[in-house]
Amino acid sequence: MALDDFTLADVYRRNAALAPRRTAFVFEGRHISHLDYLGRVTRLAAGLAREGVTAGDRVAILSQNALEMVDLIGAEAYIGAVLLPVNVRLSAEEIGFVLADGAPLLLIVGRDYQPIAQTLAPSLPSLRRCFGLGADAAPFQPFGELYDVDDPAPRQDVDADAGFVIIHTAAVGGRPRGALLSQRNLLIAQSSLIQALGLGEADVNLGVLPLFHITGLGLMLTAQQAGGVNVIAAKFDAAEAARGIAAEQVTLLATFAPMLGAILEHASGDQLRSLRAVTGLDTPQTIECFEAMCPNARFWSTYGQSETSGLATLSPYRERPKSAGRPLFWRSMAVVDADDRPLPEGEVGEIVLRGPTVFKGYWNNKAATAHALRGGWHHTGDLGRFDADGYLWYAGRAPEKDLIKTGGENVYPAEVEAAIRAHPGVAEVVVIGVPDPQWSEAIKAVCVCRDGASPSAAEIADFVAGQIARFKRPKYVVFVASLPLTATGAIDRAAVKVAHGEASSD
Amino acid sequence: MALDDFTLADVYRRNAALAPRRTAFVFEGRHISHLDYLGRVTRLAAGLAREGVTAGDRVAILSQNALEMVDLIGAEAYIGAVLLPVNVRLSAEEIGFVLADGAPLLLIVGRDYQPIAQTLAPSLPSLRRCFGLGADAAPFQPFGELYDVDDPAPRQDVDADAGFVIIHTAAVGGRPRGALLSQRNLLIAQSSLIQALGLGEADVNLGVLPLFHITGLGLMLTAQQAGGVNVIAAKFDAAEAARGIAAEQVTLLATFAPMLGAILEHASGDQLRSLRAVTGLDTPQTIECFEAMCPNARFWSTYGQSETSGLATLSPYRERPKSAGRPLFWRSMAVVDADDRPLPEGEVGEIVLRGPTVFKGYWNNKAATAHALRGGWHHTGDLGRFDADGYLWYAGRAPEKDLIKTGGENVYPAEVEAAIRAHPGVAEVVVIGVPDPQWSEAIKAVCVCRDGASPSAAEIADFVAGQIARFKRPKYVVFVASLPLTATGAIDRAAVKVAHGEASSD
Repeated sequence: MALDDFTLADVYRRNAALAPRRTAFVFEGRHISHLDYLGRVTRLAAGLAREGVTAGDRVAILSQNALEMVDLIGAEAYIGAVLLPVNVRLSAEEIGFVLADGAPLLLIVGRDYQPIAQTLAPSLPSLRRCFGLGADAAPFQPFGELYDVDDPAPRQDVDADAGFVIIHTAAVGGRPRGALLSQRNLLIAQSSLIQALGLGEADVNLGVLPLFHITGLGLMLTAQQAGGVNVIAAKFDAAEAARGIAAEQVTLLATFAPMLGAILEHASGDQLRSLRAVTGLDTPQTIECFEAMCPNARFWSTYGQSETSGLATLSPYRERPKSAGRPLFWRSMAVVDADDRPLPEGEVGEIVLRGPTVFKGYWNNKAATAHALRGGWHHTGDLGRFDADGYLWYAGRAPEKDLIKTGGENVYPAEVEAAIRAHPGVAEVVVIGVPDPQWSEAIKAVCVCRDGASPSAAEIADFVAGQIARFKRPKYVVFVASLPLTATGAIDRAAVKVAHGEASSD
Repeated sequence: MALDDFTLADVYRRNAALAPRRTAFVFEGRHISHLDYLGRVTRLAAGLAREGVTAGDRVAILSQNALEMVDLIGAEAYIGAVLLPVNVRLSAEEIGFVLADGAPLLLIVGRDYQPIAQTLAPSLPSLRRCFGLGADAAPFQPFGELYDVDDPAPRQDVDADAGFVIIHTAAVGGRPRGALLSQRNLLIAQSSLIQALGLGEADVNLGVLPLFHITGLGLMLTAQQAGGVNVIAAKFDAAEAARGIAAEQVTLLATFAPMLGAILEHASGDQLRSLRAVTGLDTPQTIECFEAMCPNARFWSTYGQSETSGLATLSPYRERPKSAGRPLFWRSMAVVDADDRPLPEGEVGEIVLRGPTVFKGYWNNKAATAHALRGGWHHTGDLGRFDADGYLWYAGRAPEKDLIKTGGENVYPAEVEAAIRAHPGVAEVVVIGVPDPQWSEAIKAVCVCRDGASPSAAEIADFVAGQIARFKRPKYVVFVASLPLTATGAIDRAAVKVAHGEASSD
C-alpha cells in the first residue's frame, strides 16, 4: 500500500467521516449527502468492476451534466480507472476520433446522444458495452443497473500519480489532443484554489459549466475537496442559474462569457446576495455590472488550460484590472523566448510552467508530449508577460498555436480553414479570432474565391457547420481579392489580422 | 529536470517575485525582505557548495534561534542538503549521539555551544569543519565567511521527495530516533495549515518555539509559504514576546504550556490585539484567560508529531473543547487495535495515519521504520479515539511508547528509569507522567530503595540531571516499599499510575 498516497477516494471518505449528513450535491432539486455520495460511488465502483473495469482502463461518458456523471467521476477515481469525458458539442466525426483515441471499455451515453453513440459504437474495437442514462436507456443497458451490486467496492489502493482523466483539447491540425491528468495533479491544483479563494464547508458551488471541461470539473472537485456543496446544472440557463443561486445560497460560480452577463440580466441583486466569488473571463462592462449588483462578491481573473490542471493564475479583478492575475501556489511560471531563455519583466514571450499541477502528457502522443514538456517546463503555447508585481498579462496565442477562444471553447483556425477550403468556390482562406462582446472572441473567415465563383457568407458558414462542431461556424465571412504575403511568399496572417481584426463583415 | 517538483526554493523565488520588498523575517529588530532573503540563501548555498556540501549531505546546527539558522534552512533546501538541527537542551552525551547518528559534514555552532562542540568534534569522523555564529566564533571559522562568495548559487534541481531534515525524537530505550522529512512532506503539511487557519500575506508569525522542533520549524515555514512575515525570537521570554506581538502586529503564535500563560501574565489585552490564531496545548484555565483577553483571536487544538510533519489535527478549541481537533487535509487517520484492525467510533486504540505528510522513515534505522510504517500506515504510538463528528480525543501513549510530554519536550520513562537505576541506593523504579499546570506533564519517579539505603528525593533528581538533559529531571520522587506486579510477575505500570498519578511527592 502506498503510504504517501492521498486520493479522491480519501476526500470522499473524509467528507463522509467529518460531515456524513451534510449536503454534497444538489441536482434537479435532489440533495445527496456526503455519506450518500460515498455509498453511490462505492456501489457504482463495484458495478464497474463487475464489468471488468480495472485500474488504468478507460470509461467514457458522452452526456450533459448529470448526477450519474458525478457518481461516475467518483467511482472511476475509487478504482483507479481513467475518465474519458467527451465534449458533447463536438461533431460526430470529432467524437468518433476522441473515442477511438481514448479506447474506452465502456461508454456511458446521455439522453440526447444515443443515436450518435449507436452510429459510432460498431467502429470502436475497445468498446465492450454502452450504458444509457435516464429512464429510457434503449438501445443500451440502463446505467442504473451498475449500482445494483451485492456489496459496495472495498477500500483499494490507487496510485494518486497515475492518469485519472483525459481531457481532449483543440490541437494544431484540427485533431484534438488528450491531456492526461492524475488525481494528484487535481488535488494539488485544487488545494491552492481553496487557499486563494478561502473556501470551506460553508461554500456552495454552482456548476453551470460542463463537467467535460477542466474548469467545470475542477471547480466541482474543488468545492468537494473543501467540504462544500455542489449544485450541478444539467446545462446553462441564465434564469435557472439565478434562481438556483438564490435557492441554494450559492457562494462560488465559474463562468465563461457571456454566461455571467446573461445571469445578471435575469437576476436581481437580492437573488445574488449569497455570491462571494465568481471566476472567469469576461468584459470589463459585465464585471462592473456584476460588482454593482453584488457589492459583497469579487470577480477573480484567471489564466489556465487543461494541461495545467485548470487555473494557473488567480487574483481579484480589482487588484489589477484586465491582468490574468498572479500564479497560484504550487506553480513555477515564467515567460521565455523562442530559445526557452527566460525573459525579463515586461517582455512578451511564451508562458511556461512547472510543478505538480502540470499534466502527465498527451494521451497516445509522445511526440506532442515531448515537444510541450521540453526542457523541464510545460510550454502552454500562449503568450504573455509578467509585470513588476508578478501579475500575468495575457497576450494571445503563440504563432504555432493560434487558437480562438469562443464561449469557453478552443477553436483552431487551421481546422476551420481546412473545412472552408473543401468548398469548391474557395481558393484560399485565413481564419482569425475577433473581439466579441458576447463570446470573448468570434470566428472570422477571410476568403479568396476561385475564379468565377461567388459563394455567400451564409453559404460558407453553413458549409463549415455541416462538417465540424457548430461552435466552430464562422460568425463573420468576408471576401477579398487576394491575401497579403510575407517576404518569403507565405500568407501573412499577422497582416490579415491587422486588416480584418474587427468584429464586422466588411 | 523534474517537471513536477515544487520545492522550498520555489517558495523563496515566488515570494521574491511577488513581493520583493515586503518583510520576510524580523530578528532582533532587523527586517529582512523576501528579496534579501533569497539573496542571503543563494549566497550561503554557494558558500556551502564551496565547502563541498552537495545534495544529501548533512549540515548540522547546534544553536538557539538565529537569523543565520533561518538562512541555513533556506540554503540547505536550495542545494538539496539535509538539515540536522540539534536540540540544545539535550545533554552532551545525547548531542554526541545525534551528531554521530546524522554524520554531518559541517557543524554550525551557536554562541553558547562552542565548548560542547569542541569536546565532541574530535570524535565525529564525518565532520570536516565547524563554523561559529556571532561576532566571536572562536575556536571555529566565522559562519559569516560562508556568505562571502563571488556568485550566488545558480538555480538547481532538487528532488522535493528526498530527505531534507532529520528531527531526532525521544525513543524507546533512551536513544533518540531521527525522523527524516522531505521538502514535499513539509510543503504539503503546510498547505493544509494555511488552508485551515486561512493564512496569507498579511499574517505575522511570532517564532518563540525553537526551530530545532518540528512545531517551531513548521510554523515558520508555513507563514513563509503563505507569503507572510516571521518574527523570530532567539529564545522564549514572556515579556519580550508580549512586546514583540504589539510591535510587529503578530497574528499567529504557536506555544507549549506554560508559554501562553506567561505571555498573558506579562501583557495587556491591548498589546495582544493583533493576535488571530494561537495553536498549542494548554490548560482550559489558560485558554479561557486567553479568550477573555483576546476576544478576536482563537485558540486551536492540535495533535501531531515529528513523524507526521507536525500538526495532523487542528480545530478551534471552542468547537469541541479538550478534543485534539479534526484531521487536517492530506491526512487519512484511523484508530486501530493491536492487530491493526480499524476500531469503530468511540473506541480507544493506536492512532495511525497515512498520506503525503508521513515522514520518509527513521534515519539509519530500518527496523524502527519498518515497525512504525507496517501495513501502509504510520503507527504514532499514541492512543486516541474519534467521536461521531470526527474529532480526535487523545488518550495517552501506547504502552510500548509510554512517553511523557513536558514543556513541549518528549521524555521516555525508560531513559529516566535507566538513569535512576544507576544510583547505588535504588533497587527498582517506575517513572510516570503526572498532570502539571505549568508544563502539561511533569516527571514523577516511584522508587524502591535497596536494603539499608535511604537516598533523598533531591539526591535522586540531581543524580538524573547529572547524566541526561535537565528537562528529564524528575519533579517528584517518591519511595515505596514495593511495586505492584501483574499476574505474570512483571511490574504493573498501570497500577503504579493509578496509585501515584497525582502531582505530588507523597
